[in-house]
Amino acid sequence: MNFCSNCGHPVNLKVPAGDTLPRHVCGNCGSIHYQNPKIIVGALAEWDDRVLMCRRAIEPRYGLWTLPAGFMECGEDSLQGALRETLEEAGARIEIQGLYSIINITYVDQIYLIYRARLLDLDFCAGEESLEVRLMQESEVPWGELAFRSIDLTLRAYFRDRPTRRFDLFEATLDRRHSAARLITPPAATD
Amino acid sequence: MNFCSNCGHPVNLKVPAGDTLPRHVCGNCGSIHYQNPKIIVGALAEWDDRVLMCRRAIEPRYGLWTLPAGFMECGEDSLQGALRETLEEAGARIEIQGLYSIINITYVDQIYLIYRARLLDLDFCAGEESLEVRLMQESEVPWGELAFRSIDLTLRAYFRDRPTRRFDLFEATLDRRHSAARLITPPAATD
Repeated sequence: MNFCSNCGHPVNLKVPAGDTLPRHVCGNCGSIHYQNPKIIVGALAEWDDRVLMCRRAIEPRYGLWTLPAGFMECGEDSLQGALRETLEEAGARIEIQGLYSIINITYVDQIYLIYRARLLDLDFCAGEESLEVRLMQESEVPWGELAFRSIDLTLRAYFRDRPTRRFDLFEATLDRRHSAARLITPPAATD
Repeated sequence: MNFCSNCGHPVNLKVPAGDTLPRHVCGNCGSIHYQNPKIIVGALAEWDDRVLMCRRAIEPRYGLWTLPAGFMECGEDSLQGALRETLEEAGARIEIQGLYSIINITYVDQIYLIYRARLLDLDFCAGEESLEVRLMQESEVPWGELAFRSIDLTLRAYFRDRPTRRFDLFEATLDRRHSAARLITPPAATD
């Protein structure tokens, strides 16, 4: 950020009064421009023993596989966002079962919210941002060709949990590009 | 948004190629400026049968009561954000038990992530943004003087769940300023 989006004058990085972190502050109109992490919403949709996967037709990670997911938009809630992304990228209609994973990626300031869902019919098709959409059994998942570590973590947790069908919320943080995931203690639903 | 934060030229609202929604696009450098919902992280911290509440020393809702919570910052994960806000606003150290509520507020493009936590000691004090910090039993909660509906919903769910100490994730959406909350089906941890 170089210029104030309100008045067009140059901004400076400084700590506003009463704040603790440097922000982009306009020297002309005084606007403070906060930057915050962005939310990515998506779905892990099941059909029998298979999950719905998309091969990306866009950068980054063109040609690699992912779950339908994308940036949450203003005006929608996280669940509506997951439904929308699944429809846009995989042409698929789903029923949400519940939030399944929260993956923080602090080095790119993103947080993934992935819902577990049931695919409602087999009438799906690749959207504009997908090269191909497929239902995959665990043995068919191309682990070496997944687009994002958040998706890898979510799928591994899912296949670990699936035999018991007990899908407690899975929470993890990726702190650095090449570090191992820091798994957050699974929340105790009872204590 | 009136001006491009990259080059300072005026922006226009238009739907970029391949997109479906209008965005602020710079006519000079071509930058697309996306706007997305913001995350608020906080904690519902317990000490025996009491919860930690803060009375706001800042606008909006000066003088009203809330749980320690605030905007998630870049570079931290959601759990670190909840710890930081609790320390800043209530001078309190907590141990996180797990994510407890997700409240979408679509008319202001916010999503609350409130963690359930255990207060570690009684050495807390009002931070700069609080007039007062208190531990409250259920009967002491000033329901008519709560700062935010997200906090009201979270506290009501908590006191409903507490007798059994089964704290399944609570998810709700507030679509309009005066509408009732739309409760999202509690996620089935098993199915």
